[in-house]
Amino acid sequence: MEFELQLQKYINSVNTYLHSVFDNKTDAVYEAMRYSLYAGGKRVRPVLSLAVTDALKGNAEAALCFGCSLEMIHTYSLIHDDLPCMDNDDLRRGKPTNHKVFGEDMAVLAGDALLNFACENIAAADYINPDIRMNALKILYTASGAEGMIGGQVLDMQAEGKSVDINYLELLHRRKTGALIKASAALGAISAEKPNNILDSYSESLGLAFQIRDDILDVEGDAEKFGKPILSDEKNNKTTYVTLFGIDGAKKRLTEETEKAIDSLQFLGNDGEFLRKFALYLLNREN
Amino acid sequence: MEFELQLQKYINSVNTYLHSVFDNKTDAVYEAMRYSLYAGGKRVRPVLSLAVTDALKGNAEAALCFGCSLEMIHTYSLIHDDLPCMDNDDLRRGKPTNHKVFGEDMAVLAGDALLNFACENIAAADYINPDIRMNALKILYTASGAEGMIGGQVLDMQAEGKSVDINYLELLHRRKTGALIKASAALGAISAEKPNNILDSYSESLGLAFQIRDDILDVEGDAEKFGKPILSDEKNNKTTYVTLFGIDGAKKRLTEETEKAIDSLQFLGNDGEFLRKFALYLLNREN
Repeated sequence: MEFELQLQKYINSVNTYLHSVFDNKTDAVYEAMRYSLYAGGKRVRPVLSLAVTDALKGNAEAALCFGCSLEMIHTYSLIHDDLPCMDNDDLRRGKPTNHKVFGEDMAVLAGDALLNFACENIAAADYINPDIRMNALKILYTASGAEGMIGGQVLDMQAEGKSVDINYLELLHRRKTGALIKASAALGAISAEKPNNILDSYSESLGLAFQIRDDILDVEGDAEKFGKPILSDEKNNKTTYVTLFGIDGAKKRLTEETEKAIDSLQFLGNDGEFLRKFALYLLNREN
Repeated sequence: MEFELQLQKYINSVNTYLHSVFDNKTDAVYEAMRYSLYAGGKRVRPVLSLAVTDALKGNAEAALCFGCSLEMIHTYSLIHDDLPCMDNDDLRRGKPTNHKVFGEDMAVLAGDALLNFACENIAAADYINPDIRMNALKILYTASGAEGMIGGQVLDMQAEGKSVDINYLELLHRRKTGALIKASAALGAISAEKPNNILDSYSESLGLAFQIRDDILDVEGDAEKFGKPILSDEKNNKTTYVTLFGIDGAKKRLTEETEKAIDSLQFLGNDGEFLRKFALYLLNREN
């Protein structure tokens, strides 16, 4: 129960921050940006930044700023991924995708503007030490760039219609989903003036577990809870943890990665409690 | 003659810098990024950063880093503008546009990755004072964002098929083309540890003149030299300086803005010589 309350508190801070930044913006492209940004969902990534900083007794204000910039980048990547020339998806989080509402041209620009704003947001945060902000930008934009998230998206495109092996699949996910989740934890760590890699074992396992759960939900999930059509991987001939290991094998790997994540938290003692429960929460998520 | 040599020297530094950053990158998306980045052209924006810093006796190394990041952002905007869902152009700088060569999906990602890399590039430049780098990021990403270049692109889309007045047209161009040109000069200024707005009068007039020249070239230019089809504005029913003022009226405004730019340089004395000639060079450009 305490976990649920704390989780909701983190989610509320994120939503409050995003609304305070974007509610009063008037240009047309902001409307399209808000549409996807406010559709929000679980806020897994900024919650992770906040929770890591709290576990390390750090500066929550910095972690909130960095985590929300990361959420902007995550959101832009969803808008661009959904475009007709990419995955051509009509539904995201139970709502029509951005280009279905605002048109393709505006969706391209709304995505661009979110990626752009993530940097503006950190550059404008004068209340945070500039050295830490520069480090945050380095961590964030390396994770989201050509050798991180965008690189993962390219690997995904190149695998289309082919069957790939587990090494390829893990590299793909380490970049496409894993890089930003790892960066979320790193941004929390530097907000506590700790080494950026102090929680890498945790966040790497968490990122992998997150993707495996997604693959399982695509087969077993409830489309309404999941917020998007299920069986889309099968339809698109995608290699997933389920196609490689079967549903039981995938569940076994999910449990193993979650345990690895939790085991890596021992050095935090009681301060790791929320992060432990967060890993279990992600293990059991329905969307 | 001295001007031409100096201009070429600046262009060479820009190209050398970009090649040193991108030549050895191996991921697939870099190939698409290089294609557009190396197609290069006049390098007006980073040349302006370098020339401003030289005029103010500043740090050429910083100006080169910032100017090249700005050139990456300029290049991404061209790739996304050319997409079928935007201007749907097949030709740019005399070559097939990015999506014609690499496909729409890769062109979207190559654009994203360039916008992303512009930040990575500055964040990684440890040899430049972090306060100046943070200021550079603020100037650059404000200029390229929803209230700058992207905002101008939205105004452009919203004007499609309508006739707009001169106020709308100037606002559109101040954002779409002007914001990055103004930022180029500002990045040169802060590289010399001068106020970022010290050359605003120059760069604002230069930006406007640049756009007017573009509108004139679209009517009178040689498609081969121009590198893209002419009369495209007429085809797309676009309001331009030529449709509003006629070709002679547009030429008159071009001369006036160029003179304003040059007049604003008086405080630099002889140190403004290159910038003066640069304004005349842009006035007479054929592409």
